[in-house]
Amino acid sequence: MKHLILPLAAALLAAPLSAAEPAPAKAPIPSEIVAAAPQGDWVAIAAADLLVMELAPDARGKPRRVVIQLMPAPFSQGWVGNLRKLAAAHWWDGLSVYRVQDNYVAQWGDADGEVAGKGRKLPDGLAKVPESEYVAPYADLTNPIYVPIPGETTPPATSFARPRGPFVKVRHLSFHSGQDSYESFVGHALPGWPVAYNGATVWPIHCYGMVGVARDLSPDTGTGAELYAVIGHAPRQLDRNIALVGRVIEGIEHLSSLPRGPGNGVYADPGDRTPIRSVRPGNEVAGLPAYEYLSTESGSFARYAEARANRRDPFFIMPAGGADICNIPVPVRRSAGSR
Amino acid sequence: MKHLILPLAAALLAAPLSAAEPAPAKAPIPSEIVAAAPQGDWVAIAAADLLVMELAPDARGKPRRVVIQLMPAPFSQGWVGNLRKLAAAHWWDGLSVYRVQDNYVAQWGDADGEVAGKGRKLPDGLAKVPESEYVAPYADLTNPIYVPIPGETTPPATSFARPRGPFVKVRHLSFHSGQDSYESFVGHALPGWPVAYNGATVWPIHCYGMVGVARDLSPDTGTGAELYAVIGHAPRQLDRNIALVGRVIEGIEHLSSLPRGPGNGVYADPGDRTPIRSVRPGNEVAGLPAYEYLSTESGSFARYAEARANRRDPFFIMPAGGADICNIPVPVRRSAGSR
Repeated sequence: MKHLILPLAAALLAAPLSAAEPAPAKAPIPSEIVAAAPQGDWVAIAAADLLVMELAPDARGKPRRVVIQLMPAPFSQGWVGNLRKLAAAHWWDGLSVYRVQDNYVAQWGDADGEVAGKGRKLPDGLAKVPESEYVAPYADLTNPIYVPIPGETTPPATSFARPRGPFVKVRHLSFHSGQDSYESFVGHALPGWPVAYNGATVWPIHCYGMVGVARDLSPDTGTGAELYAVIGHAPRQLDRNIALVGRVIEGIEHLSSLPRGPGNGVYADPGDRTPIRSVRPGNEVAGLPAYEYLSTESGSFARYAEARANRRDPFFIMPAGGADICNIPVPVRRSAGSR
Repeated sequence: MKHLILPLAAALLAAPLSAAEPAPAKAPIPSEIVAAAPQGDWVAIAAADLLVMELAPDARGKPRRVVIQLMPAPFSQGWVGNLRKLAAAHWWDGLSVYRVQDNYVAQWGDADGEVAGKGRKLPDGLAKVPESEYVAPYADLTNPIYVPIPGETTPPATSFARPRGPFVKVRHLSFHSGQDSYESFVGHALPGWPVAYNGATVWPIHCYGMVGVARDLSPDTGTGAELYAVIGHAPRQLDRNIALVGRVIEGIEHLSSLPRGPGNGVYADPGDRTPIRSVRPGNEVAGLPAYEYLSTESGSFARYAEARANRRDPFFIMPAGGADICNIPVPVRRSAGSR
């Protein structure tokens, strides 16, 4: 294992920066910035805004808990309301993860829903949400979006520098440096969720770990009974085509390490499905840890994002000078009393 | 499973486009374009340019084969030469996958290499490759790079259109529309590998499934004995910091679905490691299928890339109008006689 060091391991070492990259005066690395963030930069997540999914234990009997933070307003609230009703009704209990497609999604709900007479009845009162709710009017945002501003960071060590970050607060769309490879701009909102936006609308985006609502062909938008989590490279083509209703904040590995199904990932053999023991609103789960995320409006997050884009860990000899938004995950942790 | 339809499933349906997006005259979808590509658009991969890794069978006794295509010149050839020597010496036989970090990498080689006196001796004659080999001079490319040209595609259905694609052939760097979220431009080269480049150099990039050389701190560059495959969102911060030596073209799911280790993914319990039965050069493997990839210089690839960026599958109501390079994977398949 001599030659195994990759960034996270290297971050634990106290070694000085290599000779190839002159050290900025003790520039902190992303994990250090997060660890040093003052408590005031962290935002508590209400237990009522969590869903806790208990999968059947693994082959060794180890529990598999997946904790999902629900999407806040102004996004997807029709579907989120349905998720709350489904969890309150214990609707998912005894169903399964029935689809795992490599580098794409793990999906759960009622695998027999397509078989006439076999599908589980949905609770009464679920909303039928229109496609227009895939986006929100930009004016509905009550919090600013962060975008990188050129010229406010140390130029990266490349001859082709287009400086990015630090991320700063803007309320308007006059800065176009946040444009990514898709036809939109990206930043954080609410504060704490990655979003994309254009001149008129804003929408959540499909980063790793995001949870969305599987649906049938348009104009169907799904109820929220069938859900998926992203377990691969961000499938941004799904943005504005499917409702995103949350993100996995703990336990994504229990979904991402499941055996892959053939083709589109739906298991051919029902015996391959992973049973869901229960899904509960967080406030119904005794002993659930408290969670918090690093506010994307904080100075700590600005420094963290800048450091993610310009890695100075001892391992790195060439900072990238930029990062795509799904490569700057919002830090989430258990609150101090819960660790 | 009524509401489960996600793109790949939907692509199988013959349903018309939804009313929300007026149908271009029977615009083909990515999978149809690839399926219809003439044989002349496919490039055979020589068996000698493959490494075949056989992991121990899974818990049900199913074989787990991972097929890796080695990186072609001008990239990383010092390390690739080492990989050929290590495979010829059967060096990896009996070693293991000893690190799996969620949304990052699966890593294999000699887990005991750090323990004094326990590491397996490396074959003689391995090259010590300098860091300068992480990139190649742009002038060394004998094939053109594709970058998207603005204004040559149907404008996407957004009020914020910056049209992209179709991808066309250019030999110079005067087109900057290929710039992505990192401090570089991206395209395909050689032909068939995603690369990034600036005015002077060009380098392979860390997309899903790419295989790289684990190393210690700079100036170490690794030998190639310890390798990793990307199993999460593209960790582009590693570009130009580590040698990329190939990509998994079949069997990535045998790595991506392995149990995750704690922290940086290194298993605390050696019993959690996945044994490697053997790693062989492809031309030493009896009965190995032949593989081929879709030339990125072909018209089929240009149409495929454009369709990936502007999805018209029946499932989609809003094409993204763009795609990042790691979301346009180069199609690879078994050759006709091998399927």
